[in-house]
Amino acid sequence: MGSLVAQYGAPRAVEAIRTRTLPPDFVAKQAQLERPPNLTSCLNAWYTRLAAANPAADLEAGQRAGARLIIPGSTEWPTQLDDLGRSRPLGLWVGGNADLRFSCLKSVAVVGARAATSYGCHIAAEFAVGLSELGWTVVSGGAFGVDGAAHNGALAAEAPTVVVLACGVDVSYPSAHEPLFAKVREKGVLISECPPGVHPTRARFLIRNRLIAALSRGTVVVEAAIRSGALNTATHALSLNRHLGAVPGPITSAMSAGCHRLLRERKAVCITSPEDMIDLVGALGDDLAPQVRGPAVPRDRLNEPTKRVLDAVPTRGGAGPASIAVTAGMSLDTTLSALGGLAAAGYIERTSGGWRLRKQPAAYRKASDSAALEPPPIPEPDPTDIPPPPDDLRASEVSP
Amino acid sequence: MGSLVAQYGAPRAVEAIRTRTLPPDFVAKQAQLERPPNLTSCLNAWYTRLAAANPAADLEAGQRAGARLIIPGSTEWPTQLDDLGRSRPLGLWVGGNADLRFSCLKSVAVVGARAATSYGCHIAAEFAVGLSELGWTVVSGGAFGVDGAAHNGALAAEAPTVVVLACGVDVSYPSAHEPLFAKVREKGVLISECPPGVHPTRARFLIRNRLIAALSRGTVVVEAAIRSGALNTATHALSLNRHLGAVPGPITSAMSAGCHRLLRERKAVCITSPEDMIDLVGALGDDLAPQVRGPAVPRDRLNEPTKRVLDAVPTRGGAGPASIAVTAGMSLDTTLSALGGLAAAGYIERTSGGWRLRKQPAAYRKASDSAALEPPPIPEPDPTDIPPPPDDLRASEVSP
Repeated sequence: MGSLVAQYGAPRAVEAIRTRTLPPDFVAKQAQLERPPNLTSCLNAWYTRLAAANPAADLEAGQRAGARLIIPGSTEWPTQLDDLGRSRPLGLWVGGNADLRFSCLKSVAVVGARAATSYGCHIAAEFAVGLSELGWTVVSGGAFGVDGAAHNGALAAEAPTVVVLACGVDVSYPSAHEPLFAKVREKGVLISECPPGVHPTRARFLIRNRLIAALSRGTVVVEAAIRSGALNTATHALSLNRHLGAVPGPITSAMSAGCHRLLRERKAVCITSPEDMIDLVGALGDDLAPQVRGPAVPRDRLNEPTKRVLDAVPTRGGAGPASIAVTAGMSLDTTLSALGGLAAAGYIERTSGGWRLRKQPAAYRKASDSAALEPPPIPEPDPTDIPPPPDDLRASEVSP
Repeated sequence: MGSLVAQYGAPRAVEAIRTRTLPPDFVAKQAQLERPPNLTSCLNAWYTRLAAANPAADLEAGQRAGARLIIPGSTEWPTQLDDLGRSRPLGLWVGGNADLRFSCLKSVAVVGARAATSYGCHIAAEFAVGLSELGWTVVSGGAFGVDGAAHNGALAAEAPTVVVLACGVDVSYPSAHEPLFAKVREKGVLISECPPGVHPTRARFLIRNRLIAALSRGTVVVEAAIRSGALNTATHALSLNRHLGAVPGPITSAMSAGCHRLLRERKAVCITSPEDMIDLVGALGDDLAPQVRGPAVPRDRLNEPTKRVLDAVPTRGGAGPASIAVTAGMSLDTTLSALGGLAAAGYIERTSGGWRLRKQPAAYRKASDSAALEPPPIPEPDPTDIPPPPDDLRASEVSP
């Protein structure tokens, strides 16, 4: 149908269906395709639908429901839908006060399971708030679970949000989302390919998903079981060369299994924050996510030989410089000089038994496998005394 | 030191250090390296350590502790350590009844945070049990948290496990793991580069990590904060061209942030089960993970037109064939034939108002976004009547 309308325009396409006579060169061209469609069966189906269609009544119902019909070329038409090629929708019904085209310029699809866990709903809402506050519009399908949480998050951040329905824009499906859809009409838009009054079917959900993927710059799957409509949207996003992200979750949760499969097959990027997603879909060098860093500890500012000497100083008792030098694997000269610096900086102290770590309220744990150590007490080391090593400079910066 | 021993053998290396005179051609060769080492400072450090060394006492202490010393060439030496090049250990102290070389032939390193969450400990233990039951040895560092849970899981599955220590094999660090180490001596091996009696230091933990990575075919990080010793092991695994996996977790958990970063940077493969890990490290085509599949539902066996007609049949009331044909977007002929098949198979029934879905205890939810639907009641569709479509055949197989 998309090919027919693209080639001959809508009026001639309608005429061809009404007369059950397709243009001969169209038939010839379709027969040359790699997987030629069964045009007779198509024509029969189109004929049945055309016979039941009542465009005037649809337009009137649309007007009553406060919905407008836009087509390619309308000022509100989102041109990114052109990427759908032959399956670009012929028109869209739009309800709501926001401008669809403008809303979708910088938009992210947040999708996931209807049977989402509280974790999935929490993440969806948090992401929607974060994306909205950073100037991005949330596109989703208005369903229970992740979709609803995402729309509600965007509305909570007072941002427009786009609901892509699989039924008429005047039909509330699911009906419990009636209040949500009312709020979206106020601040965002509800859109659908179906004329007003049409109820959703499984097929309509699946073809609807391509619109969610095509409207947004990228799709993030928050939670999805192995068989899930959200993975269908993900597939559309990939085939449209849109960015795809997946939020990981506990591997014990069946609702994260679809996300993990996308990650495992390297189809999706691992997304742990709204900033990660914007890093993916944003302009190069413009919307970069800050790199996640661990906390910096004063120890980072010590140079390598000094660190090794510090690690060789015992917590209890005490040790002489020679014994410390052996443990640290350093020469005696270097050890003596490092011990002096460490003592001046307050890391260690000299007792009758030799050098030991300075006692402090939160004990400096020695021999730690992890770098997340308690910092030593004030006074901090004098940077002119023990200069920070250039190699470690990056690691000692605190992330903003 | 590795270069010196590799080039001149251990006795000449010791002699060079004792006399503080390095062979001139060794000095010349080292000076040509891209980052030439400070040989004077090295020599001083080695001299200090040599002066404090007492090999005879070490061997005696090892014998008392029931530990053996192995070197490259020993029958128990794991030759995969050769991949470490110059930083290959000069020798290893081994305690325990298992054979180190044999234990590590098929082995996976399970590493992670000491401050692991209950989720991390649970996953580590489950993975260790799974890997052990599939014939793989678990290698880890014997620390609190993930390491300990992994070793305990392997022991619970009555499999040998390899603990790589940063202290002497007779030293229990952490001391609370004394009973664990006793069990490992019974069924597995404890190994260390350090002679008996040596206590751990931070530097020893970091150099120990390269052994964990080098001994195993791949490393899986179960939980790791952004700054974590486990990430150090992961870096070693990558630089040794070993496989690297990371287990995802909730993005709200700081203890999974390191794993998520590895996934995000595509350094690690997303691992959700022991089978996933074996798929990664196992022999090609030999140890493949079964593909995760959703549950198969009888609806899968219907062909595409029949599915579309089924979706167009209402739950309540009833609809005539013409109306169903329009909703389904199918021709009337196809619709009538599909309705007959669906009725015979028990999916739908005819009422005074037309066709509707058959009532059943667990309601067949119509207009569902997800594919995880309740199956229709018996009788199941007769496969000869409604043949399964070839395209859907794979999707309808249940995973073993």
